[in-house]
Amino acid sequence: MIPKTMQALVKTAAAPGMDMREMPVPEIGPADVLVAVETASVCGTDLHIYHWDEWAQARIKPPYIPGHEFCGIVAAVGDLVQGVAVGDFVSAEMHVACGHCLQCRSGQAHVCQFVKILGVDADGAFADYVRIPATNIWKLDPAIPRDFGSLFDPFGNAVHTVLSGAIAGQTVAVTGCGPIGLFSIAVAKACGAAKVFAIEPNEKRRELARVMGASVALDSAGDVAGAVHAATGGNGVDVLLEMSGHPAAIRQGFSILRMGGRASLLGIPSRPVEIDLANALIFKGATVHGINGRKMYETWYQAEALIRDSGVDLSPVITHRLPLARFDEAMHLLESGEASKILLTVGSN
Amino acid sequence: MIPKTMQALVKTAAAPGMDMREMPVPEIGPADVLVAVETASVCGTDLHIYHWDEWAQARIKPPYIPGHEFCGIVAAVGDLVQGVAVGDFVSAEMHVACGHCLQCRSGQAHVCQFVKILGVDADGAFADYVRIPATNIWKLDPAIPRDFGSLFDPFGNAVHTVLSGAIAGQTVAVTGCGPIGLFSIAVAKACGAAKVFAIEPNEKRRELARVMGASVALDSAGDVAGAVHAATGGNGVDVLLEMSGHPAAIRQGFSILRMGGRASLLGIPSRPVEIDLANALIFKGATVHGINGRKMYETWYQAEALIRDSGVDLSPVITHRLPLARFDEAMHLLESGEASKILLTVGSN
Amino acid sequence: MIPKTMQALVKTAAAPGMDMREMPVPEIGPADVLVAVETASVCGTDLHIYHWDEWAQARIKPPYIPGHEFCGIVAAVGDLVQGVAVGDFVSAEMHVACGHCLQCRSGQAHVCQFVKILGVDADGAFADYVRIPATNIWKLDPAIPRDFGSLFDPFGNAVHTVLSGAIAGQTVAVTGCGPIGLFSIAVAKACGAAKVFAIEPNEKRRELARVMGASVALDSAGDVAGAVHAATGGNGVDVLLEMSGHPAAIRQGFSILRMGGRASLLGIPSRPVEIDLANALIFKGATVHGINGRKMYETWYQAEALIRDSGVDLSPVITHRLPLARFDEAMHLLESGEASKILLTVGSN
Amino acid sequence: MIPKTMQALVKTAAAPGMDMREMPVPEIGPADVLVAVETASVCGTDLHIYHWDEWAQARIKPPYIPGHEFCGIVAAVGDLVQGVAVGDFVSAEMHVACGHCLQCRSGQAHVCQFVKILGVDADGAFADYVRIPATNIWKLDPAIPRDFGSLFDPFGNAVHTVLSGAIAGQTVAVTGCGPIGLFSIAVAKACGAAKVFAIEPNEKRRELARVMGASVALDSAGDVAGAVHAATGGNGVDVLLEMSGHPAAIRQGFSILRMGGRASLLGIPSRPVEIDLANALIFKGATVHGINGRKMYETWYQAEALIRDSGVDLSPVITHRLPLARFDEAMHLLESGEASKILLTVGSN
Repeated sequence: MIPKTMQALVKTAAAPGMDMREMPVPEIGPADVLVAVETASVCGTDLHIYHWDEWAQARIKPPYIPGHEFCGIVAAVGDLVQGVAVGDFVSAEMHVACGHCLQCRSGQAHVCQFVKILGVDADGAFADYVRIPATNIWKLDPAIPRDFGSLFDPFGNAVHTVLSGAIAGQTVAVTGCGPIGLFSIAVAKACGAAKVFAIEPNEKRRELARVMGASVALDSAGDVAGAVHAATGGNGVDVLLEMSGHPAAIRQGFSILRMGGRASLLGIPSRPVEIDLANALIFKGATVHGINGRKMYETWYQAEALIRDSGVDLSPVITHRLPLARFDEAMHLLESGEASKILLTVGSN
Repeated sequence: MIPKTMQALVKTAAAPGMDMREMPVPEIGPADVLVAVETASVCGTDLHIYHWDEWAQARIKPPYIPGHEFCGIVAAVGDLVQGVAVGDFVSAEMHVACGHCLQCRSGQAHVCQFVKILGVDADGAFADYVRIPATNIWKLDPAIPRDFGSLFDPFGNAVHTVLSGAIAGQTVAVTGCGPIGLFSIAVAKACGAAKVFAIEPNEKRRELARVMGASVALDSAGDVAGAVHAATGGNGVDVLLEMSGHPAAIRQGFSILRMGGRASLLGIPSRPVEIDLANALIFKGATVHGINGRKMYETWYQAEALIRDSGVDLSPVITHRLPLARFDEAMHLLESGEASKILLTVGSN
Repeated sequence: MIPKTMQALVKTAAAPGMDMREMPVPEIGPADVLVAVETASVCGTDLHIYHWDEWAQARIKPPYIPGHEFCGIVAAVGDLVQGVAVGDFVSAEMHVACGHCLQCRSGQAHVCQFVKILGVDADGAFADYVRIPATNIWKLDPAIPRDFGSLFDPFGNAVHTVLSGAIAGQTVAVTGCGPIGLFSIAVAKACGAAKVFAIEPNEKRRELARVMGASVALDSAGDVAGAVHAATGGNGVDVLLEMSGHPAAIRQGFSILRMGGRASLLGIPSRPVEIDLANALIFKGATVHGINGRKMYETWYQAEALIRDSGVDLSPVITHRLPLARFDEAMHLLESGEASKILLTVGSN
Repeated sequence: MIPKTMQALVKTAAAPGMDMREMPVPEIGPADVLVAVETASVCGTDLHIYHWDEWAQARIKPPYIPGHEFCGIVAAVGDLVQGVAVGDFVSAEMHVACGHCLQCRSGQAHVCQFVKILGVDADGAFADYVRIPATNIWKLDPAIPRDFGSLFDPFGNAVHTVLSGAIAGQTVAVTGCGPIGLFSIAVAKACGAAKVFAIEPNEKRRELARVMGASVALDSAGDVAGAVHAATGGNGVDVLLEMSGHPAAIRQGFSILRMGGRASLLGIPSRPVEIDLANALIFKGATVHGINGRKMYETWYQAEALIRDSGVDLSPVITHRLPLARFDEAMHLLESGEASKILLTVGSN
């Protein structure tokens, strides 16, 4: 029996903070699925929304329910839904593409011009229930550790970034070792990367980087270029995976990228970055990929296979578990740099 | 009979200017070819060297002979040379790759770590004779108009840029309509581009852009974004070919690139550029290629075929012809913006 | 006013032939579109169905309405349809993909495991009206010549085949000059192919091949290898586009493909083919693409752009126009080899 | 001190067998390297030459020294050689490309039209000394287990095959578990393949396949299609790596390849193969790669990294070690199916 109301974490107003509230359980349309959330995890984006920073002020329309990383049990399905059933354990792609634009019609739905992100532009998963269009549901293979179910969104970011170019036999630098950076290290190693250099100022994160398989974890304040060039015969790295969004890290990353290398950029700088295009990119004959979301749904298939079949272990990145109601604590742990990925358990789960 | 001395345009000193001098004809080694230059053309790089700007001061070691775009007749070949004979009409790839580095050994010789460019790092083609390693010689098909022989270097830049991604059926913006930009327009159209938007402040160049096949030539000071979006159903262009190196043009170019588009950057900014990576590239899921030189020698085969078989006509870009000795006039024509490509005739040709 | 009944060409029984019948106008669901057919064109597949050959006996379930190449005017749209309106001039992708399989979920809907082809597996367009799922509708740009509207299906096959690998600057052999082969010649030339060798036993078709832009049209019974090798410096062609499905043509095509070349196969052999894999493909390091349908919907965008913006002219391939009721005559013209593409006008059009 | 003569295994006549003979040590030219062979390994090709089968009769010109898989110590270098020194431990790419053809000039030297294979078309490594052009030398990283030095040729075949398309997260079938098939299994797993199905009639080889990392090893006489479809949700495999050259295995492999899959063919059929192109390849929209040799030298870099950095272990495939003089025994072990890879120790090593 689905109740009429539920507990939800709500961004109630155009101001810092969020609040637990009783809210109506969403009604679903004929092509929707209602999921009883079991676990939701906290993303850096949620912290921006919580703090109500410039980006959040421009994008977010309160009141609404944030949360875009989750897993749970299907509680109801609309009349037209096929292939998803009540009781299925699922996660979901929260980028809801329009289906009609050039990008959606030509294999690039992940950069749909009219995308709506559930948990950002519409109600999300920090609640007992969340409504998801059936096409966006991803059924979780029972062989996937249950704890990893809410992590397909950020893990998929990592998979998309790593696999946006050749990786087997390549030397790789990962700049920024938040959760997606850490996942990227494991993905790169699982896909045959030769050496992975993790570059990160925070020692705790460098330690996690080593656990995730980094060959070396370098303090970004040290002689990164010297260390990388020594270890690559003077060439620099074949591949740069930029996960920080920090201007200095971006420049440092390009400075160690070899002639003819590949850079995939996922970290989001908060303002324009000054970059020496001539030397960083043009003379170098580099290829640069901007990475947004996950390919629908190639990335999901790859992510599933890497966890299920190739032994990629996400558990070291999960540093904390808290009930949803302790979201304030979660936000503070995250911003302190003490936490990597925090799982929030929802409802009676 | 090869003489002992020759006339050459020499960068004699670390100061502005160049001088015609009598110089020894180069001696060739067993794997070299000596070419009697017939035509050399002037590149923007030559103008930097002439003016002795910051870049030139850092890179150029006078005295030496500049000039890296040319064609001529083979006058002598070394003992080990195969497949090139005295009397052949040839041009040459002036990027001399080392042959031993990672890039040279893995199909990326165009970004050789230890490249020497003849005409920049060693003696070039502004002279009666030039010495070229035999592997770098490109024999010119007699079906190629003789006037185009010296243009394979810049035309090859255009071909490399245009063909660094999909082009058939694509909408394209070319920012900057110097000779390489103009060539790119013709190449894009010959390779099936849908619409080509030429974006350029100089009206003379916009006129040439139309002659080369641009669907529209837009003044960069006008409402470029409005015009492009109107003509692309609001999508923006599929492909950006950046040929100017100007920060404002680069930013303008990215602003009209569609979600999921491709940008190929050839123009060299003279200093770091501030760029909104988040919106220009990352959210957009764009792919960016830095373009350096020509692929050895895929680009040369493509360039030859496009001229010979697909009717690409370079002649509108050739605005002036002068004897080599009138190089001062050529430099001034070039910097005034009045000239596009200037052919210098050499020796008694 | 949409009538209750319509005239349709019906495959009434599991036997040779087809018959004009009065049939109910299809009812549409909430996500469907009803199109008043203006023109339908005849495909080789229709001839197989007409003659009730082995393939047809295995695949076709009479009674049903064939016809999968068409254009017409939207007569009605279902309640959920967005972006398509009554009065729009449209064609459609007749491969209806399931939307749920691995292929549909990862950018390969054109090889959906559970595809239904309208006009083959369900009612098609040889009728006054045809029902199409809205997602499969392609709105025809008014700049497209109205006569070409029904040809996007076979023209799209050609575009998909040609653009399944590099084409600019490449030498190309097209084996088999039926309509799709002829279209391929024009597409290849419009996309910068160097030389196109059309290889075909029928002189009428060779003549059309020349009109469509073939550099040379060779009788497959002649010294094809000699001619191709002479014209390609002994290399053979860079690209083979196999459009015939005939074993001898397939072998001939591979025999002239250069080392490292690309072969894209669209012609369907009616039974297994003996092929010297070692020499045709493996030692050669060739890449072979099997081509099925059109990419959804990249191919449609490319096809539209090539006709509208790059001047690809399909009209030489349209050899006959007949009213639908004269289908027997059309089938005979097609099988005689006298016709290339036949347009059938439908209803009062 | 390099002696004047050496012991070598010689194909003395156009007849079955080989003989140990005293032969002159090869003289080297200015661009050559002389290597004192330490270990040579036996390839199936050597067995064809030994038995003097049809292929050997057409290709081989006795007398000459076979052997194309080896490692050893540089004993002398020509005057023009750079970067290789006496005492270096090396292997070599034995495909000596011409350097002048279209393929050599455009990044496809592995399919050079005029290739000479040392050990097949000219003297090879079954001898105390072998002469190698310096450009073909591959210096072995000291971190590579010494035993694996002679295996870069067949291991490189495997690497080239596996990495000729996407592999991370993919399901893979390997048909044929000779040494290259076995190596492919390990490479695929190291590069993130999801499941690898080894398909092979010989139980000993199936056992090795499991050791190398196959998820399942299936008897080709069993219900392969049933097992593969059950394990892939009915899809079939994403990737087929064909290593046997047997017609039945090729057909079986294609029968389990999914719609839109990739097949890379390395095994060489001894005669033409009957194949159902329509269903195996065309309707499927499959991509097929013919694989020849190793990419020069991308494959070598990848092979080195996979062994050195990704822990790929070749040792289970090395089933026997014998002195060169016991070549008859080696040939018989190989043809009995009892041996996988046999290392022959050379000289006093």
